[in-house]
This record gives sequence, structure tokens and C-alpha cells, in this order.
Amino acid sequence: MSSIRDPGSRPLTARGAATRARIVNAAADLIYERGVERTSLDDVMAESGVSKSQLYHYFADKDALVLEVIARQTERIFESQRPDLEALESLAALKAWRDGILRLNKATRGKGCPLGSLASELANDSEPARKRLADAFSLWRDRLEAGLAKMRDRGEIDASANPHDLALALLSALQGGLLLAKTSRSSRPLEAALDMAIDHIARRATARTGC
Amino acid sequence: MSSIRDPGSRPLTARGAATRARIVNAAADLIYERGVERTSLDDVMAESGVSKSQLYHYFADKDALVLEVIARQTERIFESQRPDLEALESLAALKAWRDGILRLNKATRGKGCPLGSLASELANDSEPARKRLADAFSLWRDRLEAGLAKMRDRGEIDASANPHDLALALLSALQGGLLLAKTSRSSRPLEAALDMAIDHIARRATARTGC
Repeated sequence: MSSIRDPGSRPLTARGAATRARIVNAAADLIYERGVERTSLDDVMAESGVSKSQLYHYFADKDALVLEVIARQTERIFESQRPDLEALESLAALKAWRDGILRLNKATRGKGCPLGSLASELANDSEPARKRLADAFSLWRDRLEAGLAKMRDRGEIDASANPHDLALALLSALQGGLLLAKTSRSSRPLEAALDMAIDHIARRATARTGC
Repeated sequence: MSSIRDPGSRPLTARGAATRARIVNAAADLIYERGVERTSLDDVMAESGVSKSQLYHYFADKDALVLEVIARQTERIFESQRPDLEALESLAALKAWRDGILRLNKATRGKGCPLGSLASELANDSEPARKRLADAFSLWRDRLEAGLAKMRDRGEIDASANPHDLALALLSALQGGLLLAKTSRSSRPLEAALDMAIDHIARRATARTGC
């Protein structure tokens, strides 16, 4: 997702790439904890052990760094949902993905989705960040949609099902469930939201084969 | 929701109540635009035309003001969803509520839910704010749940339906849909999320009376 290059577009050395990655990872962790507004470049330097001149060698300003944080968090989300997200070809696989999300929510102690938090903070303020976040959510929706399209093509869900809208609704339920779980310090809203979405998809199956 | 009183718990004069309300309304508007972190008390004074001594007469600090902003935004949400939210006794009423939400989303140009934004920004940082937000979402879920319970009792949805979980899932779909709509500058995620939730609830009806 994030192509590794320096501002002058020359390829980075291995050491340069490692330094750059250390900066982005530190910024991603701090921003996930505190939000963009309360994370300063000084905090990022202290956390990553990188000097000001090194940081400015790789990033023109905080906005440029934040765009890379969005890319990094998107990668992390896809990594954390591997292999489930790539193998979403059946209702059973969809339920395995749901279980993985709930485990992850527990492991992060319900801190919410890093992309959702970035979107909430930045979508009305920064047009480049909003676009990057919209692209990240589109990619996520694409993965879900591809799985739902396979289920439809294999006849597991009804031929009239719209994988695009179902994926959009599933991702919305996930985001809203994570937000309410974070606020209530309970996984129940997340479970209720995902179970509704998956039950809704499953009923498209039983409506065809049942009754 | 927010009882009107001064810090010493003496009743406010009409003029005092009006000043206090002007401060809270200005803070609510600014925070909806910019977020809590980027809204200073100086901004609130400038926006409301209130002096520093007046502001500190009513609010000990920014945290105290933010708690009142949460209460005010909760009131605004219930006001904006009146009468639909109070009359959620049928699937037709639920669809009217959905249409109202979509109109409101259009009117605010997809800026998202003020409570959702506050929850995303504050739930990990401020325990008093998190609790206040959790209570606000519980109240909202209660209203939806009361409507769904009436539909179940009247036989419009299946007796096995769980109004609590359905309401939690519906509110999650709404919050996630608003977040994705704000990020993508499109109402489609919100429509997909609400339509899934309502279709899910409606199918609980047709499953009983259909087939």
C-alpha cells in the first residue's frame, strides 16, 4: 500500500527504509493511543529515537506523516485479519472472520478501530487524509464484497443478493459496533452488530433453500 | 438531561440560564466542527460573546464544559429525531425514522454524528466523558428497544426477537454508516447499513407470517 520511497523519489537504502518504518510505526502507535491532534512530531521523535533532521528527511510535515500512518494502519488491519479476510468464501468463513474480530477487540481491550478513529478525527478537516481513509475503507469493503460475490456465485447466498451493499453494511456494522464497544467497555454492541449482519446474509441463504 | 444549576447548586436566574446555555451551545457547535482538542475555552468565549469570569462562573474547567456538551448534543439528537423516535411502534414508523436520519445526514452535509465523534475522540482518554457518552448511547438504544418491544408485543415481529440486541445492532449500523458516509462523502454506506438493519428486523416478521 505505502510504496517505500524518499521525498526525492530515489530508492531508500535498507537502513533508510528501516528508519522510515520506525518513524511511521511510532507515529501510528501514538496516534492510536492519543489521536492526531495530541501527538506532536516531538513525541514521534522521542518514541522512535529519531532526530528532527532524520524525521524531516523522510516527511515534509506532520500531514505527510499522517498519510503514511493511514497506509500503515490499513496494512496492519489486513495483516491482523489474515487469513480470514482472504478466505471469505463461505458463511462458515464469515463466522471465523467475525470470531477473529472479536478476539482482536478483546486483545486491544476494546480500543476501537485505528482507521475508524482516524476517520472520525480527520474526515471533516483534511481532504487528503479523508481521501486516503475513504480508499482504505473501499479496499476493506472490496475484500468483503469479493467473498460475498463468491458465496453468491456458489449458490450459498441468494442470486439477488447485492455483494456491494451487503459488504458496505457489514463494514458499517463493524465500525459502529467497535465504536459502541469502545464507549461502553463491552463487546456486546460489536457482537450484536456483527451477528445481525451475518444473520442477515445467512437468511438470504435459507430463504432460497429453506421454507 | 442536563439539569440547569450553577456550581453551587443554587437555582440560576433566567438570565444566568440563558448565558450558560449560550456557552454550551457555542462549545457544542465548535466541538462538532473541530473536535474537543482543537477547541479552546478562548474560542468558546469568542463564539458565545461571554467573558472569562462568566465562563468560569458556570464551568470549573474545559472538562466540565465538555460533559455539558455531551448532554446538549444528546438532547439535540433526540429533538432532531422527534417525533419518529418516540413513535417507533411499527415497521412503517421505523422506515420513517430511517428517512429522517438520511434527511438529517444530507442537511448536515454528512458531517457525522456529534455523539459518535465525541465518543471516538474521548472514550479512551476521559473516564467521566466515556461514562456520559455510554449513558447517552444507552438512552438512545433504550428508545429504539422500546419501539421494537412494542412491535414484538403487537405481533409485528417474531416473539423470539430480542429487542435489546436488535436495538444495539441498529444503533451500531447507524453509527458505522454515519462514519463511513462522512469519510466517503456519500450517503450510500448509511443507506446500506440502515436498510440491512431494517430489512433484518422486517424479515423477522415475514419469517413468521410468510412461507
